[in-house]
Amino acid sequence: MATGMLLVCGLALFLTIKSNLLHSQQFTISFQRPSDCSVEQFYDISSQSCVKCGPNQSTSATGLSCECVTGFRVLATNGASITCQQCPLEKPAVTEDGYGCILCPGSLTEQGTCQCPSGSILVERDVQGNPLEEARCEVCNGAEPALSAPNSYGDRCQRCQASLINTSQSCMCGSNILAGGMCFPPNNLPTAVNPNVNYAELSLPVQSAWFSTNLYSSAAACLVYTNLTACQALGNMCVMNMHSFSSVANDACGLYNTIFRATAALGSTQDISYWRANLPWLYYGDQPGLANRVLQTEPLPTGFSFKGRNRNTDINLVAAVYNTRGDFLQWEKVGGNNLQLCPDTARRQEAAYTFGTAYQETCVLSVADLLRVYAEPLFYDVFVDLSRGEDRRLLPLPTRNLNQEYNRKFINQGNLNDWYLSRRVLLVDTLSGREKSLGSLPKVIRIASSIRIGFQLVPGTQKGQVFPPLLSVTYSDVLITAPNTQTVSVSFAVYYEMDQTEAHMKTDIALGVLGGVSVLYSLVKTASWKRRIGSPLIDIETVLKFLLFYAGDLANVFFFITVGTGLYWLIFYKTVEAQHFVSVLLPLPGLQEERFIAYVGCAFALKTVQFLHKLIQQLSVDIFFIDWERPRGKANKTIQGNGNGEAKHSPSPVSIWRTYFVANEWNEIQTIRKISPTFQIMAVLFLLEVVGFSSLALRDPWSDLQRPPQSYAPPYSLTLRYGLAATLWLCIGLLQIIFFTAFHERFVEDKICQFVDLCSISNISVLLLSHRCFGYYIHGRSVHGHADTNMEEMNINLKREAESLCGQRGLLPNTDTQTFQISITSRLRLQYDRILEPLSRRNGPSRLVDAASGHPFDQSTKAYHTMNRFLGSVIDHAHRDMEYVVRDKLFFERVIGMEFLEPMDKSIFYNDESHSFSDVLFYGNEATLLIFDTLFFCVVDLGAQSFILAGVLTYVQQMIFRLIRNGIGRRNLANKTLVDQRFLI
Amino acid sequence: MATGMLLVCGLALFLTIKSNLLHSQQFTISFQRPSDCSVEQFYDISSQSCVKCGPNQSTSATGLSCECVTGFRVLATNGASITCQQCPLEKPAVTEDGYGCILCPGSLTEQGTCQCPSGSILVERDVQGNPLEEARCEVCNGAEPALSAPNSYGDRCQRCQASLINTSQSCMCGSNILAGGMCFPPNNLPTAVNPNVNYAELSLPVQSAWFSTNLYSSAAACLVYTNLTACQALGNMCVMNMHSFSSVANDACGLYNTIFRATAALGSTQDISYWRANLPWLYYGDQPGLANRVLQTEPLPTGFSFKGRNRNTDINLVAAVYNTRGDFLQWEKVGGNNLQLCPDTARRQEAAYTFGTAYQETCVLSVADLLRVYAEPLFYDVFVDLSRGEDRRLLPLPTRNLNQEYNRKFINQGNLNDWYLSRRVLLVDTLSGREKSLGSLPKVIRIASSIRIGFQLVPGTQKGQVFPPLLSVTYSDVLITAPNTQTVSVSFAVYYEMDQTEAHMKTDIALGVLGGVSVLYSLVKTASWKRRIGSPLIDIETVLKFLLFYAGDLANVFFFITVGTGLYWLIFYKTVEAQHFVSVLLPLPGLQEERFIAYVGCAFALKTVQFLHKLIQQLSVDIFFIDWERPRGKANKTIQGNGNGEAKHSPSPVSIWRTYFVANEWNEIQTIRKISPTFQIMAVLFLLEVVGFSSLALRDPWSDLQRPPQSYAPPYSLTLRYGLAATLWLCIGLLQIIFFTAFHERFVEDKICQFVDLCSISNISVLLLSHRCFGYYIHGRSVHGHADTNMEEMNINLKREAESLCGQRGLLPNTDTQTFQISITSRLRLQYDRILEPLSRRNGPSRLVDAASGHPFDQSTKAYHTMNRFLGSVIDHAHRDMEYVVRDKLFFERVIGMEFLEPMDKSIFYNDESHSFSDVLFYGNEATLLIFDTLFFCVVDLGAQSFILAGVLTYVQQMIFRLIRNGIGRRNLANKTLVDQRFLI
Repeated sequence: MATGMLLVCGLALFLTIKSNLLHSQQFTISFQRPSDCSVEQFYDISSQSCVKCGPNQSTSATGLSCECVTGFRVLATNGASITCQQCPLEKPAVTEDGYGCILCPGSLTEQGTCQCPSGSILVERDVQGNPLEEARCEVCNGAEPALSAPNSYGDRCQRCQASLINTSQSCMCGSNILAGGMCFPPNNLPTAVNPNVNYAELSLPVQSAWFSTNLYSSAAACLVYTNLTACQALGNMCVMNMHSFSSVANDACGLYNTIFRATAALGSTQDISYWRANLPWLYYGDQPGLANRVLQTEPLPTGFSFKGRNRNTDINLVAAVYNTRGDFLQWEKVGGNNLQLCPDTARRQEAAYTFGTAYQETCVLSVADLLRVYAEPLFYDVFVDLSRGEDRRLLPLPTRNLNQEYNRKFINQGNLNDWYLSRRVLLVDTLSGREKSLGSLPKVIRIASSIRIGFQLVPGTQKGQVFPPLLSVTYSDVLITAPNTQTVSVSFAVYYEMDQTEAHMKTDIALGVLGGVSVLYSLVKTASWKRRIGSPLIDIETVLKFLLFYAGDLANVFFFITVGTGLYWLIFYKTVEAQHFVSVLLPLPGLQEERFIAYVGCAFALKTVQFLHKLIQQLSVDIFFIDWERPRGKANKTIQGNGNGEAKHSPSPVSIWRTYFVANEWNEIQTIRKISPTFQIMAVLFLLEVVGFSSLALRDPWSDLQRPPQSYAPPYSLTLRYGLAATLWLCIGLLQIIFFTAFHERFVEDKICQFVDLCSISNISVLLLSHRCFGYYIHGRSVHGHADTNMEEMNINLKREAESLCGQRGLLPNTDTQTFQISITSRLRLQYDRILEPLSRRNGPSRLVDAASGHPFDQSTKAYHTMNRFLGSVIDHAHRDMEYVVRDKLFFERVIGMEFLEPMDKSIFYNDESHSFSDVLFYGNEATLLIFDTLFFCVVDLGAQSFILAGVLTYVQQMIFRLIRNGIGRRNLANKTLVDQRFLI
Repeated sequence: MATGMLLVCGLALFLTIKSNLLHSQQFTISFQRPSDCSVEQFYDISSQSCVKCGPNQSTSATGLSCECVTGFRVLATNGASITCQQCPLEKPAVTEDGYGCILCPGSLTEQGTCQCPSGSILVERDVQGNPLEEARCEVCNGAEPALSAPNSYGDRCQRCQASLINTSQSCMCGSNILAGGMCFPPNNLPTAVNPNVNYAELSLPVQSAWFSTNLYSSAAACLVYTNLTACQALGNMCVMNMHSFSSVANDACGLYNTIFRATAALGSTQDISYWRANLPWLYYGDQPGLANRVLQTEPLPTGFSFKGRNRNTDINLVAAVYNTRGDFLQWEKVGGNNLQLCPDTARRQEAAYTFGTAYQETCVLSVADLLRVYAEPLFYDVFVDLSRGEDRRLLPLPTRNLNQEYNRKFINQGNLNDWYLSRRVLLVDTLSGREKSLGSLPKVIRIASSIRIGFQLVPGTQKGQVFPPLLSVTYSDVLITAPNTQTVSVSFAVYYEMDQTEAHMKTDIALGVLGGVSVLYSLVKTASWKRRIGSPLIDIETVLKFLLFYAGDLANVFFFITVGTGLYWLIFYKTVEAQHFVSVLLPLPGLQEERFIAYVGCAFALKTVQFLHKLIQQLSVDIFFIDWERPRGKANKTIQGNGNGEAKHSPSPVSIWRTYFVANEWNEIQTIRKISPTFQIMAVLFLLEVVGFSSLALRDPWSDLQRPPQSYAPPYSLTLRYGLAATLWLCIGLLQIIFFTAFHERFVEDKICQFVDLCSISNISVLLLSHRCFGYYIHGRSVHGHADTNMEEMNINLKREAESLCGQRGLLPNTDTQTFQISITSRLRLQYDRILEPLSRRNGPSRLVDAASGHPFDQSTKAYHTMNRFLGSVIDHAHRDMEYVVRDKLFFERVIGMEFLEPMDKSIFYNDESHSFSDVLFYGNEATLLIFDTLFFCVVDLGAQSFILAGVLTYVQQMIFRLIRNGIGRRNLANKTLVDQRFLI
C-alpha cells in the first residue's frame, strides 16, 4: 500500500517535471525552409513548416502550394487546399488553366497538357470562352497580309517580328541571317564573331554566353536597322571588353569600330566628331597627344571658390545610365552609391563631391554580395553638369580605362601622350563571365576596383578654374571559386592637383639665395672662432669647423623654408583662399611631397649636427671660481703632521663653502631653459589633440577645429601637418619665452641674475673660457670686502647694499657692470694652462677613493690656490704683462658676433650687460634647442603620423640630453673648478 | 585697296578667333532629359538629346521613341524611325498592334483603337492570325461550364476568379460581397472597416489607400477562404498599425483578433498557443507578467564562450521575410542591411552579431533615399537559430514594440510586467501613409528609428547562458513635407546586461567593512595626533582632525574598491573569461554605472581633502638648523659702532654659508618625489594612445591592442576605462618607485641621503617639528669638529672619513644613526616657542626693505643665536631639565604610527634609519600623491573621455601644486630658519 503511494507520488513528480520540461521547450520551433520540404509537401508560410499535400498532389514550382500531379485536374479549391481529380481517359489532358480535362489533337507534354507543333498555337476554348471538347492546333498564317506567328505562350497568333517582315515580307527569314530572334539581310559584318571576353589580368579568355547570344545580333541590328538600343548594347559589350581592340575585327570593339567607320556618312552627334550618330560615344580619337589636349587645353567655364559671395564648391556630376541590353534608364546625379561601391552614410559620401576635399575610401566587399546586388551591370556616361540657370550644358568626363588594351598593350598605363581616352564605365560586371548560360554562376567577375576622379588647376589661375576632370578606372578580374568567402578590395578617390613646378622653383631660388648667404655667415663665424682660439692657421680643423657652422646655418635655412612652405599652404589653403577663388591646391602625397619631406629631413639632420656640436662645446668649457676672500684672523689650528697636538696660530682658513655654494648653483643652472620644455609638449598636444588643431591638417579647405564624428574625415596632408606642428610649436615657444622674460624673470625669479648676485654676495668671481682665448667673466668681488662671515654681518651687508651705503659692484669703480666677454692674450692663456697642467692628469670620474688618494689631491689643492691667486692678481692689475682694458663692444661686433680687435698685448674685457655667458648654458641657446625640438617633434610625426608619439619621444629626447648635459657638465665642472662632485647636488 | 586688304585680314582674324572659340566649346553638349522633350520629339538615347518625330507622329509613353498619332497606323519601320499612314475612312480604327487599320463594331477609344463593352473582348484576327475586316466584340460566357471572363488585356476569355466560382458557381458575385476583386459570402466580419492608420507620434490618423483597398478583402479572404497570403497581409497591416488595438474591432489588429478568436477551433501551430494555425503570429498573450516569464525563465540551450575549445560567440539570427501583400519571400540570415539601416561595410556590420561586443550605430538617413529604396515595406519574423548539426531549431525573438498601444496607452514604455510582447517587425513603411492612391507620395512614413537587441545573462551562470534576447523597436513617424531635404536619425544597437545587484551587494559589503576598519584606523591616527601635539583634551579641533584623517582613509577605501572593481571587469571580461564560458558581462552605461561613478567621485573628493590637509601641514612645519661650528680663532674685525676704525680682536665669525647651503638644499628637496611625475604622464599616454592599451576599454571581449581601422569600434566602457587608466597609472608608478629606490637612488643619486650627508659634512643638525611635541632630528655634527674650513682641510676630512680614521657620525657614540623621530616634552617646546616669540611678529613676505629694516632684524639674529645655543645644549645634554633618551621604536609603534610612551620628563629620540623626516616633504607622501594624481587623471578622463586632456590637466595640476608647495614652503623655511629667502634659490 505504502509502496503504491510512493509509486503514485513518484509518478506525479515525474509528470510534473516532464510537463515543466515540455513547458520550457514550448517556444522553440523546428527550422524548416521551403527547400527542406519533400516533393509531397508544401511550405506553409503561416506555420513556417512543411505540410503534406493532399492526395494526387505535389508541390508547385514555388514550393509554397500544392498542385495536381500530371493527369489530374483541380476539382475544387477549398480555402488553402485543393482537390484533384483524374482526367477521364477520353479527355486525358489537363487544360492550361488546370481546371478542366480535354482531348488533344496530338501528343501530351510532360506536364500533361496538349502539345502543338512549333509554329502552331493551342486552342482550348472558343472565342467566347466556352471550353472545346477537343483542343485544336492551329497554324499561324505567316504570309501577307496576316504576317502572324505564335506568341510566346503559344496560345495566340500575332504579328511577327518586324525584322522578318522587313527582310522577307513574311514571317520566315529564309536565306537571310537569323540571329537573336531577328532576321538580317546579308551585310558586311563578319558572321563568325568572337564571343570571348578577355580577362587580361588572369590571362583567361571566357566564352561569354551573353556575347554568344547577342554580339552579332546587336551589331547587325545596329548597322542594318539602326536599332538604337542594339547600338548601345553593342557599345556596352565593347565596354565589358575593356574598350580593347586590335586588328581582329570580330570582337565587340572591332564590330563597334567597323560600324563606326561604316556609318561615317551619318555624321556626328552634338558637334563632337568622336560621337557618331546612333552609336554610343566610346572613344576619343587616337591621335598622339590628344589626351593632353583634351585634358589640359580648355578649363571649365565656372571657377571654384571656397567661401564668400562666389562660393562654389559643388562638383555636379551626372550620368546617363544604360543597362546591358542598351536601354536608357535615366539621368542620375552622381553621388550616393552610383560610383562609390563602399557603403557609407550619405553625408560622408557627399563629401567626395565638395571641391577641394581630398576623398579616399577603400573597403573590402564580399563577392557573394556583389553577385547578389549587381546581377546586371549598369553602364554610366559621366558628365560634369555646367548648368547655370536656364543654360543647361554638360561636359563629358574623359575616362582613362587602365585596363584598355590597344594591340595587346596596356596603352593607358604609360605616358600621358600615349593615352587613349574613352567614355562609359561600368562598376561590376557579373554578366560577361557567365560561360554556359545566363543563369549560371559566372566564371569570372570584373569590378571597377579603383575609381579616381582627378581635378587639375589651371596654372596661375586667379579664378579657381580647373581643366576637365579625368575619370580613371582600374578594373579587377576575380575568378569565382568560392563566392561566399571571396572578397575584393575596392576604392574610390577624388584628388586635386596643381602644377607644383613654380612652387618648387621658388623654393629652390630661396634655398639657393639663403644657402649662399649662410655660407658667408658661416665664414664669418669661422673667422670669429679662429680669432677666439687665437690661431691664424687654416687647417683641417678650420674646414671642419666651417662645415659644422655651415650645418647649423643651413639647417636654419631648410627649417625656415619648410616652415614657410607649410605655413603658406596652411594659410592659403585654409584661410586666405576661403575668401577668394581657388588659386592653389595642396601638393599631392607621394611625388609632389617627396622633395618637401627631404628638406625637412635635411633640416633635422643638420640641426642635430649643430646641436651635438654645441653640446660638446658646452661640456668642455673651462671654468674657474676666483675666491676674493682673504683670511681675517688666526685660527686655533692643530697641525696634523705635528703629532703633539700643540695648538699653533696660523691664519684662520677661508671657508670653501661659498665656493661650494656658487659651484652648486652653477651646476643647477646648466640645463635651465628660457621655456619649460614639458609645458611646451603638453601645450602643443593639448592644442593639437584636444582643442582639435590637428583638423587643420586635413586635406580639405575647411578650417573648423572640431568636426562632428559623422562627417567625412579626409586623409592628412604631410605638408600641412608639418606646417601646423612646427608653427604651433614655435608660437607656443615664443609665447613662453615672452612670458618668462617679460613676466616670470622680472617678477618671480631670474636664475641667471640670481647667480650673478650670488657671486657678488659670496665674494666669488667666475672665469669662463669657452674658447682658448675667449670667454666670459663674472665679477663677484664683494663690495664689503668680506663675505665669509656670520648671519648678522651678512644681513648688515645686505642691508647696507640695499640702502646704497657701499660701493657699486662693477669691476670698474662706480660702475655696475659685473659681466664681461673677455678676449685674453695668448700669454695669459699659456699661464693659465701651465697652472692647470698638473690637473690634466687628474681626469676621469672622481670617486671617493680617487678623490681621497693622496698624491694628485695635494697637487690639485695647490693648483687651486695658485690659480686663485694668479687670476685674482690679473683682475687686480697686479701683473704688468697681463694687463687688460675694459671697453664696450661695437654694435657691428655684436651683430656679427666677432671681435675686431685682436688681444695682442692686453686682454680686452667687453662690457656685457646681457649676461651672454649663458651661451655656455642651455639657457643661452634657446633658439637652437627650440628648433631642434620642433624638428624632432615634426620628424617623428611625419614618420609615424601620431602627435602623441612625437610628444612622448620628444620628452624622452629632452630628458636624455638633459641628463647627458647635467651629468657630463657636472663632471667637467668638478674637474675644472676642483670642487668635489659630492657638493654639486 | 589697302582698306580691302585690311578688311579681309580682319575678317580672317575674326574667323580664326571664332573657330577657336567654337573649338573650345566642342566638348560641351546641351543637357536634355526625356522630360525636356516636347510632345513632338523623342529622346534619342544615342545622342542624349531630343529629336523631332516624323510627320503624324508623337512621342510614346516612355519618351524614347515615336508612335503614330491617333488614327494613323505604322506603315513601315525603317531603322529607328517609322512611317505613319492615316487609316482610311472605311477602316477608321488602328489595330492593337498598330500596324493595321480595322473597322470597329462600336466606338473608338481615345487612342484610336476599337472599344468593346465591359465583359466583352476585342477580336481583331481570326484564330490563324488572319486580320478581320471588321473587329468583333465577343461576350465571354460566364456560366457553367465555361466560367470565363475577359483577361486583363481584354483580348481573350479565360476562367474567372476562383472566389466568384466558389461563391456563386458563375462569374458573377451577385448579392455577395465583392471586395478587392474577390467575392465573399456574408460573414461575421464588419464590412465597414476602419482604413485609418494612426500615426500616434504626430496624432495624425491617415486614411490609407492600401488599407482601404485591401483590409476588408484580406481579412475576409483569410477568414472565409483561409487564404494564407491574405492572412499574412492582414497581419502585416496590423504590424503597420503598430500592433495597437482597442475595443474598436474594425481596424487591422481588431480584424486580426476577430479572426484569431473565430478560428480557435483550428488550434495552434508549432505547439505555441499564441500562434494560431493559418495566421501569422503577432502577439504573445496579455496575461500580466507574461513578458517577465517569457524573457527570464528559460535560458537558451547553448552557452556562449569567448575562446578556447567551446568558443561560441556567433549570434545566429534568421528572419522569415514577407512582403506587404503577404507573400513569403525567403529565410534571411539577419546581418548586413536587413535590420541595420545605417550603411556600413559588411565587416563592421557583422560585429553586431558577435556575442559580447556592445554594438551601437547611429546615422542620419535622407527621406528621399528611404522613399526610393524602401518603396515597399518588408516584414521580418526574427528567430534565434539554435541549430546544431542536424538538429535545426529556432527560438522566436520576443519583440517589444515601444509604439504599441493598448486602449490608447503606450503599454510597452512602462514596467516590464505590463509589457505586451509581440512578433514581426518592419523597418520602413512608406506604403500605409499613402492617402489617395498607391502611386502618390506618402503623407507620412514610419521608420524603425531604434532597433535594440538585448541579451541578459542568467544570474550566476557558469555556462555562459543567456535568456532569450529581446528585440526592442521604436518607430518614428515622419510627416513628408520636403522629402529631398528631410532626414531621419536611426540607430541600431546590441547590448548585453547582467543583474548587477550581487556585484553591488558585494561592493557595499566591502565598503561597509573597510569603512568600519578605517574608522578605527582614523581614531588611532587622531589619538596619535593628540599625543604628538601634547594635548589630552577632546575639542572641536580633535573632531575636525578625525574627520580629516577619516577622509583620507575613506578615500583609500573608495579608491581601492573602485580600482578593484575596474580591474575585476578588465581581467574577467578581457582575459580570464576568454578561456571559459561567459559568466560576467559589463555593467551597462547609465544606471548600472552610476553608482561606480559616484564612488570614484567620492574617492577623488575625499582624496583632495586629504591632499590639501597634508599640503597645509607641510607648509607650516617648524624647522631649525643647528650650527655646531664654534669660532676657531680671532678675526681682525672692525667694530662698526666704534667709529674709530681701530682693529680689535674678537672671535672670528662662524661663516653662515654652510647654513645657507643646507637651507638651500632643503628648499630644493621639498618637492622632489619618488617618481618623475611627467614621465608618469608620458608613459601612461604612450601606453594608452600609442601602444593602444585604450582598446582594452572597449565594450567587447577582445584584448587586442591594435585594431585595424576598418573593424568596428564599440563604445568605451567607463568602468573599464577607469580600471585600465588607474591600473596603468599605479603600475607605472610602482615600476618607477622600484626603479628609483632599487636602482637610481642606489647607483645614481639619492637626494635624501645626500642631504643627511651634507648635514654631517657641514656640521649642521636639523630639527624639524611637524607637531607641537613631535618631529624629526637629523644629527649633523661633524666628526671632525670643524667644517668651516678651506678646501684642503675639507678634502682631508673627507678622506679621513672614507678611510674610517675618525669617529662615527651617530648621535650616540659608536653609532651611525643620524636620523631620529623625536617626542619632546612640553617644557622643551615651551622654551622653543619662547625663544621664537620675538620672531612671530616678523611674518609676511621678506622683502628687501623689510629684511633690512633695523629693529625686527636684530631680534631675529639674536633669536637665531639663542636658539642655536639652546638646541645645541639640549642635544649635548647640557640642560638637566630637558634631558632626552634614545631608544628604538617598537614594531607595533611603527605599524600603527603612534608612540606609546608619553614624553613626560624626558624627551624621547627614536632611532629612525628610514629617513622618515621625509614625511614633511612630497618625497615621503608618494602614496597620497600617486593616488591623488591617479584619481585626478581618471576623473578628468571619465568626464571628458579623453586621455590626452586628462594627461595635460594632470600635468597642470602637478605644476600648480608644486609651485604652491615650493613657494610657500620656501617662505616658511625662511621664516622659521631665519635664512634670507634670497639664498633659497
